[in-house]
Amino acid sequence: MNKDRLAAFSDGVLAIIITIMVLELKVPHSAEWSALAETLPIFLSYTLSFVYIAIYWNNHHHLLHAVSRVDGRILWANNNLLFWLSLVPFATAWAGENHFARQPSILFGFALLMPAIAYTLLVIAILKNEGSEKTLARAIGNDNKGKASLALYICGIIAGFFQPLFAYAFYVLVAFIWLIPDRRIARIIASESEGEFTPE
Amino acid sequence: MNKDRLAAFSDGVLAIIITIMVLELKVPHSAEWSALAETLPIFLSYTLSFVYIAIYWNNHHHLLHAVSRVDGRILWANNNLLFWLSLVPFATAWAGENHFARQPSILFGFALLMPAIAYTLLVIAILKNEGSEKTLARAIGNDNKGKASLALYICGIIAGFFQPLFAYAFYVLVAFIWLIPDRRIARIIASESEGEFTPE
Amino acid sequence: MNKDRLAAFSDGVLAIIITIMVLELKVPHSAEWSALAETLPIFLSYTLSFVYIAIYWNNHHHLLHAVSRVDGRILWANNNLLFWLSLVPFATAWAGENHFARQPSILFGFALLMPAIAYTLLVIAILKNEGSEKTLARAIGNDNKGKASLALYICGIIAGFFQPLFAYAFYVLVAFIWLIPDRRIARIIASESEGEFTPE
Amino acid sequence: MNKDRLAAFSDGVLAIIITIMVLELKVPHSAEWSALAETLPIFLSYTLSFVYIAIYWNNHHHLLHAVSRVDGRILWANNNLLFWLSLVPFATAWAGENHFARQPSILFGFALLMPAIAYTLLVIAILKNEGSEKTLARAIGNDNKGKASLALYICGIIAGFFQPLFAYAFYVLVAFIWLIPDRRIARIIASESEGEFTPE
Repeated sequence: MNKDRLAAFSDGVLAIIITIMVLELKVPHSAEWSALAETLPIFLSYTLSFVYIAIYWNNHHHLLHAVSRVDGRILWANNNLLFWLSLVPFATAWAGENHFARQPSILFGFALLMPAIAYTLLVIAILKNEGSEKTLARAIGNDNKGKASLALYICGIIAGFFQPLFAYAFYVLVAFIWLIPDRRIARIIASESEGEFTPE
Repeated sequence: MNKDRLAAFSDGVLAIIITIMVLELKVPHSAEWSALAETLPIFLSYTLSFVYIAIYWNNHHHLLHAVSRVDGRILWANNNLLFWLSLVPFATAWAGENHFARQPSILFGFALLMPAIAYTLLVIAILKNEGSEKTLARAIGNDNKGKASLALYICGIIAGFFQPLFAYAFYVLVAFIWLIPDRRIARIIASESEGEFTPE
Repeated sequence: MNKDRLAAFSDGVLAIIITIMVLELKVPHSAEWSALAETLPIFLSYTLSFVYIAIYWNNHHHLLHAVSRVDGRILWANNNLLFWLSLVPFATAWAGENHFARQPSILFGFALLMPAIAYTLLVIAILKNEGSEKTLARAIGNDNKGKASLALYICGIIAGFFQPLFAYAFYVLVAFIWLIPDRRIARIIASESEGEFTPE
Repeated sequence: MNKDRLAAFSDGVLAIIITIMVLELKVPHSAEWSALAETLPIFLSYTLSFVYIAIYWNNHHHLLHAVSRVDGRILWANNNLLFWLSLVPFATAWAGENHFARQPSILFGFALLMPAIAYTLLVIAILKNEGSEKTLARAIGNDNKGKASLALYICGIIAGFFQPLFAYAFYVLVAFIWLIPDRRIARIIASESEGEFTPE
């Protein structure tokens, strides 16, 4: 029950984050295609943010599915994750308004790195609470995908100081890695054997 | 449980989409009826969007009711549907600000066609997961209403290039077709025998 | 389950309606008390809208508690209620910006009358579905409070054509009538015998 | 069930309050770091508000967990709490826009004091309904932390008339006191013996 309300609150916050971003898409006053075309970069950045938040929701969904109980540490680790995720739209909008500029590409990497760290801290808080012998601990195993993401975000941030396009390439790469929901957990719980990925 | 959280997240996103549209209704500063009358087109487009999102919520509600379990493919098919639905208010607002203009009537058709395709993909993902022998597969049968909608949206988009009024006539027609929740599913699950429609 | 998701979607929409109204409270740029005082009328109208939406949520909560199953008619009666409630903030804001003006006081009455009619239609749809022998039908009995509200809103609208202050007096009176959650239903379900009101 | 919907509605409102605050973080048009730096005070005030709302959500979560049933008084005490919490972002934004100014520091204390009083009233309404013999009554015991908070907010408001910095020091102190979820309740329900705090 405890856990259900944590999931409900997280769902609410994530649903709002993913939706209020669309308010950035200002309706053009002119009825011409050219006026619509001007909103394209904001549309692309909205799409990117939507995918990122959806990835976090899906992984969060799988993670909490494997949790049996919740303590104060987990509540706050979750709040921390929600806080950083709530800033993703801001960073994406800044990036969307200034294509290929250096500074927004660096901030964007930072805005993606922080929720990734917060998610790692949430996993640690859950593992500490569940005990290492439990299903979850076995399911997560050695978190190669998570470690790779952190490394790629840092590479992206460093790349942003030189060439923003390389930075975005790193960020898109991480999105692709996570686009498939966390099969490490799904695999053990549901005993799914058909791997679309080679085992990490 | 899995499925409940998918429903909860979808409810959250749909509730926000349906409600933030009302923010487009700017409060007039003058207290005259004429000032209020100027907000009428935006009010009409808000009403139309509200009906469309409510239709999707009702159908989504019936569809998930018939689902027994959820996999990663269904999660992403659902996210895809939510993404396209989140863009309906934008297209409606553009149409609302430029009555009977050609371009917005075409974009509006596109904004309705995309969630319709996404919904079809969600149904396919669910059927694939449930297996064709299950209740749901029998309930959906040959999806005449869905196929008709896709055809009517495409007709509307083509009509929009010539006469926007015809385009909107097609879109309103689809809304009427769907205004009654998907009885194909309700009929078999609840064994409702009093059909208000002739069987599809 | 059916019913739970209807409640969840309604909760989401009502939670958003009640909260986005606070966005109308623009933060003054000056740090003076006088700048804050200018936001007072908007604050009062926000408070009034908050109370009205909270009344509907509480009554809706009690009503659905007594419902055992949901059909398509109930889903759409509920959507209709949510639609009209979503317009309450707009009418309240127009009233808030134009104190004691004639037109906003009339629109405000209309904006309160429509959800009241929609709520009545929802009750009728539920009674039709449940059957007159059920707990709910006995609990609602002859809906004196609801009938009184409709009459008072119409009185308020008529009064608005002559003297807006009288109109608001009628609206505030209705709020007081409903501020206590619908004890007609609570009384029979929970067999509460301590009535704070004389029986209607 | 009753209680679940109260929790769901509260979760919705709190999720929206905590998230719409990020809309105050306007995206700078320039891609320079200096443009980003200008948003720093708003970011800090967003962070502070986020922590406060998260504290209330966590405490509310623990409080409702210990509740067995809900009556009309509790519903309205909860609505009252949500109303005052919905005004926290406004006060924080006013404070954020006018650093160290006297008036906003006083209003900020008031905006924190009112939800604290409302929370106390909610606890009283719940205790009245549950009866003093129940788990909850024993768990809450003598509410030293709550009483200290009320006193500290009043100290902060008074300090604000002289030196705003002292006012904020009081408010931050209260946040630290509450940052750990209400262990008084958790301790008795879950029999947690590892206290991070000395017993209050």
